[in-house]
Amino acid sequence: MSGLFITFEGPDGAGKTTQLNRVAEWLEQQGFAFVRTREPGGTKISDSIRTLLLNPENSEMANETEVLLYAASRAQLVSEVILPALEDGKIVLCDRYVDASLAYQGYGLAYPVQQIAAINRFATTGVQPDRTYLLDIPVEIGLRRVFQKRGSAPDRIERKDITYHKSVRKGFLTLAKKEPERFCLIDARQGEDAVFSVIQSDLKRHFSLGGN
Amino acid sequence: MSGLFITFEGPDGAGKTTQLNRVAEWLEQQGFAFVRTREPGGTKISDSIRTLLLNPENSEMANETEVLLYAASRAQLVSEVILPALEDGKIVLCDRYVDASLAYQGYGLAYPVQQIAAINRFATTGVQPDRTYLLDIPVEIGLRRVFQKRGSAPDRIERKDITYHKSVRKGFLTLAKKEPERFCLIDARQGEDAVFSVIQSDLKRHFSLGGN
Repeated sequence: MSGLFITFEGPDGAGKTTQLNRVAEWLEQQGFAFVRTREPGGTKISDSIRTLLLNPENSEMANETEVLLYAASRAQLVSEVILPALEDGKIVLCDRYVDASLAYQGYGLAYPVQQIAAINRFATTGVQPDRTYLLDIPVEIGLRRVFQKRGSAPDRIERKDITYHKSVRKGFLTLAKKEPERFCLIDARQGEDAVFSVIQSDLKRHFSLGGN
Repeated sequence: MSGLFITFEGPDGAGKTTQLNRVAEWLEQQGFAFVRTREPGGTKISDSIRTLLLNPENSEMANETEVLLYAASRAQLVSEVILPALEDGKIVLCDRYVDASLAYQGYGLAYPVQQIAAINRFATTGVQPDRTYLLDIPVEIGLRRVFQKRGSAPDRIERKDITYHKSVRKGFLTLAKKEPERFCLIDARQGEDAVFSVIQSDLKRHFSLGGN
């Protein structure tokens, strides 16, 4: 496998999608072959699963169902998109991946993280990111950004209470501490340009992307 | 938990649904409180997952996705239907359950059965049947029944080749051998009445259902 697998993680409102877009643009300017995708979703089957997961009408969804649906969506994304692209030598940029399940479902819902990790090893056939940018932001600031900027109604996950979102953030930070060689932790309270410049330098240093 | 959890398993065309209907009718005549359900499906969320699983257009579905979607559908069924009914002292009759995943996905797709069992322990929070009627039938006879009698086009699972279906049948028989106290193995080549009479006697003997 000669490609490069990069994921963007962090609480809602941290700016993952914005940064992923900027990295994509930058890679495109340099002529790199890359694939960008997002979770849950990214394939026809995964998008159908996404619809189920985020539909506010499905409020009776059991926690176990939620964990397994995220894993199912991810399994299809790995099989159809991520693995073929990596085998093809491409750079894969993914908005959320296994760490999101560990943070939102393991730490957030207080489930045994090891069990969720095992289910996700099965789902991904062990495919792990080479580098993960964790955009960290205090929960209140993140959620305010989500509701103010996006202007759309909150989805089923975003509706959960603030204690839940705080456990999620803490979960992300715990994961980053456990794997310091994979994670790059960034304070997302900085402006968009400052965050992008950290990511850019990191990509240059680690993977020799971008000559200047 | 004071209820009674009974599952019906076996290859396609073995007559599970017919027997489940007859047992339901018999229980009703006796005034027992029971719930009948089927897999995949049985709740609003599980039915949406069922649609995804059985849609012949989803031929690109990865095996891991299939395993996880069945488990997700089951998790919701346990949480919303099976567990509440058992806690309520009711009899639950279920058309397929965890054994079907072990047989179709573990033995059928040659996946590590232990891994699928672990995922399903998570999905079901450990809720297991008290009694499982395994209707066994040679693959050729079972499939002929399915295609001739039902008169509908085969779904995504039924379309798989005969070797697959033979591994599934063998898987079911292996599971029955491993847990002889839970499984009641019945030769489904017998007529419908003969099979029902075996199940009826077994229910009388084991659970004192039906006085005469």
